Amino acid sequence: MASHTITFQPSNQTVSAATGALLTEALRDAGLDINQPCGGQGRCGRCAVIVKDGSIRRRSTIRLTASDIESGYALACQSIVEGDAVILIPEQDQIERRLVTDKTAKAIAAPFPYDPARDQTVRAFAVTLDPPTLDDAVDDVSRLERALAARGIRHLQIPLPLMKELSARLRDAEWQVTATIETDTWRNPDGPPRLIDLIPGDGEGAAQRLFGVAIDIGTTTVSVYLVDLLSGEVVDTAAEYNKQIRRGEDVISRIIYAGKANGLQELSQLVRATINEVIKRLAQRNKVELWQICKATVAANTTMTHLFLGLPPASIRLTPYIPTVNHPLPVAAPEVGLDIHPRASVDCLPGVAAYVGSDITAGVLASGLADADDLTLFIDVGTNGEIALGTKEWLVTCACSAGPAFEGAGVACGMRATRGAIEEVWINSETFEPTFRVIGDVKPRGICGSGLLSLVAELLVTGVVDKGGRFKMDMATPRLREDEHGSEYTVAWAKDTDSGRGIVLTKVDIDNLMRAKAAIYAGFTVLAQSVGVDLADVQRVLIGGAFGKYINVEKAVQIGLLPDMPWDRFSFLGNTAVMGAYTALLSRDARAKIKDIAQKMTYIELSADNTFYDAFTSALFLPHTEMSRFPTVAALWSSERSPET
Amino acid sequence: MASHTITFQPSNQTVSAATGALLTEALRDAGLDINQPCGGQGRCGRCAVIVKDGSIRRRSTIRLTASDIESGYALACQSIVEGDAVILIPEQDQIERRLVTDKTAKAIAAPFPYDPARDQTVRAFAVTLDPPTLDDAVDDVSRLERALAARGIRHLQIPLPLMKELSARLRDAEWQVTATIETDTWRNPDGPPRLIDLIPGDGEGAAQRLFGVAIDIGTTTVSVYLVDLLSGEVVDTAAEYNKQIRRGEDVISRIIYAGKANGLQELSQLVRATINEVIKRLAQRNKVELWQICKATVAANTTMTHLFLGLPPASIRLTPYIPTVNHPLPVAAPEVGLDIHPRASVDCLPGVAAYVGSDITAGVLASGLADADDLTLFIDVGTNGEIALGTKEWLVTCACSAGPAFEGAGVACGMRATRGAIEEVWINSETFEPTFRVIGDVKPRGICGSGLLSLVAELLVTGVVDKGGRFKMDMATPRLREDEHGSEYTVAWAKDTDSGRGIVLTKVDIDNLMRAKAAIYAGFTVLAQSVGVDLADVQRVLIGGAFGKYINVEKAVQIGLLPDMPWDRFSFLGNTAVMGAYTALLSRDARAKIKDIAQKMTYIELSADNTFYDAFTSALFLPHTEMSRFPTVAALWSSERSPET
Repeated sequence: MASHTITFQPSNQTVSAATGALLTEALRDAGLDINQPCGGQGRCGRCAVIVKDGSIRRRSTIRLTASDIESGYALACQSIVEGDAVILIPEQDQIERRLVTDKTAKAIAAPFPYDPARDQTVRAFAVTLDPPTLDDAVDDVSRLERALAARGIRHLQIPLPLMKELSARLRDAEWQVTATIETDTWRNPDGPPRLIDLIPGDGEGAAQRLFGVAIDIGTTTVSVYLVDLLSGEVVDTAAEYNKQIRRGEDVISRIIYAGKANGLQELSQLVRATINEVIKRLAQRNKVELWQICKATVAANTTMTHLFLGLPPASIRLTPYIPTVNHPLPVAAPEVGLDIHPRASVDCLPGVAAYVGSDITAGVLASGLADADDLTLFIDVGTNGEIALGTKEWLVTCACSAGPAFEGAGVACGMRATRGAIEEVWINSETFEPTFRVIGDVKPRGICGSGLLSLVAELLVTGVVDKGGRFKMDMATPRLREDEHGSEYTVAWAKDTDSGRGIVLTKVDIDNLMRAKAAIYAGFTVLAQSVGVDLADVQRVLIGGAFGKYINVEKAVQIGLLPDMPWDRFSFLGNTAVMGAYTALLSRDARAKIKDIAQKMTYIELSADNTFYDAFTSALFLPHTEMSRFPTVAALWSSERSPET
Repeated sequence: MASHTITFQPSNQTVSAATGALLTEALRDAGLDINQPCGGQGRCGRCAVIVKDGSIRRRSTIRLTASDIESGYALACQSIVEGDAVILIPEQDQIERRLVTDKTAKAIAAPFPYDPARDQTVRAFAVTLDPPTLDDAVDDVSRLERALAARGIRHLQIPLPLMKELSARLRDAEWQVTATIETDTWRNPDGPPRLIDLIPGDGEGAAQRLFGVAIDIGTTTVSVYLVDLLSGEVVDTAAEYNKQIRRGEDVISRIIYAGKANGLQELSQLVRATINEVIKRLAQRNKVELWQICKATVAANTTMTHLFLGLPPASIRLTPYIPTVNHPLPVAAPEVGLDIHPRASVDCLPGVAAYVGSDITAGVLASGLADADDLTLFIDVGTNGEIALGTKEWLVTCACSAGPAFEGAGVACGMRATRGAIEEVWINSETFEPTFRVIGDVKPRGICGSGLLSLVAELLVTGVVDKGGRFKMDMATPRLREDEHGSEYTVAWAKDTDSGRGIVLTKVDIDNLMRAKAAIYAGFTVLAQSVGVDLADVQRVLIGGAFGKYINVEKAVQIGLLPDMPWDRFSFLGNTAVMGAYTALLSRDARAKIKDIAQKMTYIELSADNTFYDAFTSALFLPHTEMSRFPTVAALWSSERSPET
């Protein structure tokens, strides 16, 4: 049998390999460790390498796109040596990034060239006032206005609490002060400007610190960006479960709770407390004072906006589903109990309807959908799934209640996509043993939404779970067990976890995930259908949601959350709601554009007939009752052990 | 001796009278009672009659102007019968009104033809909304806006507290509501409109009640007009001493007090409590609910404005005399603790300088000075005396601290010009017995400012008090007495008063009054001098102040408060500050005009050199050290017993 020389880059190790050998064998001979979570079955794609030169035959290309192959990608476990070859082993990161869709950069910078003087409504102006004399005895306010007029600020409004301190602040600062001013608003670029604070000394530039917060109030998760309003950069981000969860998992149960005595007040306080905790944490770990946070934008679904503002949401739930307001005006931080600068304004972004809030309008802005030339589908995967379809010319939208499974809530061992969360899982199809990646590379604490999605997809593909979402209890693995509470699969043994308790996936968890994915799948299919669009014509699918850094698009297709179409049409954008709020925080033009988006969107009420319910029921399988909708998944299964229905 | 027939109208009684008889004798013969408080000496002018026909010789015409004589007026006690005559006895009221200057009508109506749709910024709009359906599922706010757009209201701002109740109010009212809206402001006639309240039902017109308050915060007295914003009429007026008095009589002592620990907070609370009490009294007795009061305007001197708003006034007192603000922006009623509608805006009118506040700018508006063709002097007689001089082309202004004597405060038996106050006094020059008029025709309770002024003038003219303001203790009257506390004149014996305690005028009271009148006299003379104006060229003297209905101009000249010039150049306008606030409450144009007035006025600082002090010292006599400045007073005295210096 002919022997060939295989050179592995970047280390330039060479080994000899016989014709017909697998690259994985050559790698092992070279002492090079390569990831094979699926057990070398060409399924996980984690053993991808790049054939730089030479003769390799790809036994299976299921994991590879045409462009992958063009780029030289091959799966080591599926590549047969046929001659000498030079093989590049990419960084593991690079492989993972090829498999998932990830636009979340480590450092978040302004999504446009940020110029505070042009874009920002809250700015700092250092001014030196002429000290008063008998010949120049104008009042303090006029003196300050005179100095600021030279900076283009006219008709300054000074709130009374600040007016009370004006005399002392000017004199204590010896007439040299930095004024924090909301120069105008998105709504009225002609002002009037409003004084937020007056700080002693020439604090403009480096010395002056001026921050804002962009807030996404999800039904399940509250996410906050702390933003430097001078540079436009995100200083830090943090998220926390919405404390309202204990009063109901979805918007409907929250609305019902709000109708109880003091229910509305309690829910308002809970969400405000959540936001304040997250902001406080961000401020403390970045050495920012709360009073230095002088602006806030809020994206949220309509119910969350109502509860945050303290508006009764009852009529949102009752036909004809009328919110008090889709487009609230900015309020002062103390009016909504936010512990930031007391004169900061809090701008709740505009929504569209009772079940399509500013999370989706902000998301549409952040996703670029509103500028799309091609037909684009935008899916905000959250407890309240919100979907938009269209181009820059037209937009339709709908919403569907998915439940909190994708956010790791309402799941036995669920958690947010944070340190300790299992975010991706591979299961060996021979042993049914799992391999997983944990955020922060620590002992696992639980499973986040993307981990759950990945886990169920792997269990399905390896046949541990059938198309109905049931565990096949006869599989030869100690990880499956059943007791009076039901059946479960142990992902991590107790000895391997952070808490010392095992991490499991239960049948109930799978049911929750199936309902969640079915609701979203039914949502966008019915939406497309209602406007006569064939899903195959969708050129781009933009996915937003409070997942972690990654969502494995392939696995999302495998379980039937996303439509089966070429992977390169998918983009996972991360939390688009908070991104949109961040963009609106920076730019009055962006803020105005969100309003345009809200006005441009046509809301389709899914509950108006039975179409949605029928579509939902059909989608309550993995991936779907009609396998013809998922041809690539069907093809994958036909090459492996197919899960039984 | 020839006998003549005298016919008295309107009763047509006739009597026979000899040549040389006095008309008062003929009147007595006819059994007609005529008032002679001065004892028939031609001094009080209260026995004025009109000679319709026949021969009467006027022995003295000191009380009569040329136009009086032309109109046939004669004093009965000074008129000698020389032939048959027809004599009309006017109504007593008519005589009194001839003697005093009084423009305070009983019912106060808008000083211009009021049209709320054109003039008023706070209005009520009854609207009926389309109930929502699945095909018309816009949010509540948009639905309300849509209905109001038909009434010309666009971009309505709904404050959060009202937004919270919007859903319930609209549904409870079955979509038929009356919206109370601040449609715009004096500053921005283009809006945005702001929702103040939303009341169930079609309340527009008669059913809807919409009120405002015009407030004058004096150092000593707080005056309030309760105004019907639909008709523009003053419903009722009330006044009360400023509760701050107990913390200092004048602005300087208040400023000092404000500098103590919690002093500012205390003074703010005191003045706000005063205003709230007056408003509550007005509301209760007119069956108005406090929440129906949806707008307030405030005129006040600069220190009072600062204390009302809670601004520290310290720098007002220290050279170069800088207030925090001369032109505050409107604040919400709760920000200044006013118990009216919580969303009413409170508009503190603009002032000019540290010692020339909005009481004078409002007063200038109300007085018409800003429209004067002729050279006009405007004197606002208050604890803080404020003076303006000019025409519609130019205005100069100054201020002088007069103390509270003219408001009946800081005076032994002083009181406000209200029920029970002695408001005018005549003293018989033979017996030195007083006659007085009491407001409300009840037993006297004390002496108000005009009574004090009248009393001192009478004591001076009858020689009970000398030009230095000292009692002449050797006069033969039991009403003068002296003890270890000083000397005093008893105006009303204990048995004749409401309280059962005597009402007296003390030497200290006279000194207070002299200082007050000297400060004001010095103020306007120095002001005129500083701009090169001869007082004789002043064509009109407009007098404002928190006196009662009347001020006896003649007596004010006699004591040297007002300049000695023809009486018909004087007009007493009453409380011009509250009148100006009232006008500004009704009309955005008037409000804008006050700002124009404030900007047009040139402030003259009297304390800049010794001129004012010298003028003040010279005026510390009755009427003045230079009698040549008071020729008609000198002439009066030369015809009677002249007071000795």
